[in-house]
Amino acid sequence: MKKLLMCLVGVVFVAVALSGAYAQFAKPEYAIKYRKSVMFLIAQHFGRMGAMVKEKIPYNQEVFAKNAKLVETLSHLPWEASMVPGTDTGDTTLKSSAFMQQAEFKEVAQTFETQATKLVSAAQSGDFIGIKAQFGEVGKSCKACHTQFRTK
Amino acid sequence: MKKLLMCLVGVVFVAVALSGAYAQFAKPEYAIKYRKSVMFLIAQHFGRMGAMVKEKIPYNQEVFAKNAKLVETLSHLPWEASMVPGTDTGDTTLKSSAFMQQAEFKEVAQTFETQATKLVSAAQSGDFIGIKAQFGEVGKSCKACHTQFRTK
Repeated sequence: MKKLLMCLVGVVFVAVALSGAYAQFAKPEYAIKYRKSVMFLIAQHFGRMGAMVKEKIPYNQEVFAKNAKLVETLSHLPWEASMVPGTDTGDTTLKSSAFMQQAEFKEVAQTFETQATKLVSAAQSGDFIGIKAQFGEVGKSCKACHTQFRTK
Repeated sequence: MKKLLMCLVGVVFVAVALSGAYAQFAKPEYAIKYRKSVMFLIAQHFGRMGAMVKEKIPYNQEVFAKNAKLVETLSHLPWEASMVPGTDTGDTTLKSSAFMQQAEFKEVAQTFETQATKLVSAAQSGDFIGIKAQFGEVGKSCKACHTQFRTK
C-alpha cells in the first residue's frame, strides 16, 4: 500500500512538473517555433565564433567572449520546448526517438550545455589554442545530438 | 581640403563599421529570420512575466528574475539585423520608415533596452508593486516601437 502511494505521489509530481513546463507554450506550434528560434540564434552566434576559429576573420577576444556567453545562455533554453507532447510532427526536424529515449536525449543536450559553459571559460582566458580546442568540443556536442535526434 | 579629407575618413569609417555589422549575416533573409527569432523569444519570456504580473499564475521571484534577465539579454540583439539593407521587404513586419528614420528607430529601440535593464533591477528587488510598474514601462516601450515601425 505504501509502495503504491509512493508511486502515485511520484506520478502526480511528474505530471505537475511537466504540465508546468509545457504550460509555458500556448500551442504546441509555439514550442516548435521557440526551439527553432533558439537553435537558429545558436547557429548564428556559433558561426561568428567559427569564422574566427577558422581565421576567416580576425580573432577578437571581446567579440568571441560575447558570442560564447550568448551561446551558453541560449544552450539552456530549447529542452523544455523539445519535450512538449505532439511536437515531433509538424514544422520540426526533431526525431520522435527523442521522446522515446528521453534519458539519452537529455544526456546529449546536457553535454552541449556543459561544453558551451566551458567555452565561456576558455574565451575569457584568451588562449586561442585552448579556445579552438573547446570550440571543437562544442561542435562535437552539437553533432552528437543532431546525428541521433535530428532528421536530415 | 582638410574638411573634404575628414569627410572621406568619416564615410569610410561608417562604411567599414556597417559592412562589419551586416557581414554577420550570410543572406538578408538570415537577418530577418534572426530578428524575428529574437522577437519571438522576447515575446514568449515577456508573456511568462506577464502571466505573473496579471496574477494568472503565482508570482515566483526567481522565475521572474530569470525571465527578466533573459529579455534584457535578448533586448540588445535585434538592432544590427534590423538595419541590413533590403530587409524591409520579404517575410518581415519592419516598416521601411525604420531605414529612413534611423535615429528615431534607434532611440525607441534603446528605450526598450533601457527599460528591460531596469526590469532586471526591479525583479532582483522582489518588490512586486515596483516590478508591476516597471513591467508596464517595458510594455510601453515595446508598443511605442511597434506602433511606429511595425506593420499590422
